[in-house]
Amino acid sequence: MATPSSLRGPSVRTVPEGDTRERVVCPDCGFIAYENPKVVVGSVVVSGDRLLLCRRAIEPRRGYWTLPAGYLEVNESTMAGAAREAFEEACARISIDGLLAVYDIPRISQVQVIYRARLAEPGFEPGPESLEVRLFAWDEIPWDDLAFPSVHWSLQHYGDWQRTGDERTRGTPEGASPGRLQGL
Amino acid sequence: MATPSSLRGPSVRTVPEGDTRERVVCPDCGFIAYENPKVVVGSVVVSGDRLLLCRRAIEPRRGYWTLPAGYLEVNESTMAGAAREAFEEACARISIDGLLAVYDIPRISQVQVIYRARLAEPGFEPGPESLEVRLFAWDEIPWDDLAFPSVHWSLQHYGDWQRTGDERTRGTPEGASPGRLQGL
Repeated sequence: MATPSSLRGPSVRTVPEGDTRERVVCPDCGFIAYENPKVVVGSVVVSGDRLLLCRRAIEPRRGYWTLPAGYLEVNESTMAGAAREAFEEACARISIDGLLAVYDIPRISQVQVIYRARLAEPGFEPGPESLEVRLFAWDEIPWDDLAFPSVHWSLQHYGDWQRTGDERTRGTPEGASPGRLQGL
Repeated sequence: MATPSSLRGPSVRTVPEGDTRERVVCPDCGFIAYENPKVVVGSVVVSGDRLLLCRRAIEPRRGYWTLPAGYLEVNESTMAGAAREAFEEACARISIDGLLAVYDIPRISQVQVIYRARLAEPGFEPGPESLEVRLFAWDEIPWDDLAFPSVHWSLQHYGDWQRTGDERTRGTPEGASPGRLQGL
């Protein structure tokens, strides 16, 4: 029985010739949809001793606070991507100071590259994906209303970097429960 | 005129509804083939004070020397991927010591995550993608026969890390000429 053409497209899992893994292949045209992990780029942005967070206007985790972060685009460097996300989500122009962390979230095939940054100009406001953008002093951070575990990790690692002066790039916290891991 | 079905599949560039960028879309089924940057994972592997390099058995750059490195797979952490590549290309079991470098190669949409590692067991031999695997003392490194600029960067950054003890993760060298940039 023929599949309606509106339902066609890559949909069969098979190991292509010369490959070692199953890929999603279109049985009609032979197109191989390689699935690859995605890179999320973001930043902990400060202004003086306050940190910038965005309240999400979109699902998942609408209404919760997050870093400006999102998927790296084709032909974009990770720093350029982090700066673009800060501009898109918080209308903020940032200067990047260093590589804070690289987090692996294999359950959802993400690698997150998180920079330390400063506001390069004083202004910011919510972009289309944010309900609200605010600067928080460390003691004001809404820990219980953060959108994702990696936001928590990033802020903790930023605080640790600031307290210790240890500029080594941080990785996924030991003992991070796989069940709790979600993407940004 | 109908396109032969053997030539169908994602082939039209258009901006999907709700998106901001052109994507490759299949006009038959509406499948959107998101193109994302890819993550390459690899390692500078040492045994004592010698460094492990693999001579490539495959194009591009067949016959030239490289680090064990390759594309990160779905549901794989960057450390697990680097260890898998060392095993596939050099039949080497490694222990990872730290994050040496993160390189951006936007021209070819790659982010390279390179670890420092040691041989965890003494043995190694060429995997199917290698002609030869060898340990080189620093003075023996075949600088003129390295496969890619990022191999050169990784080895230089490893040497710098070893000389200075500075454990900060390195980034793409300043002034790396875009014309010279190639992937691993």
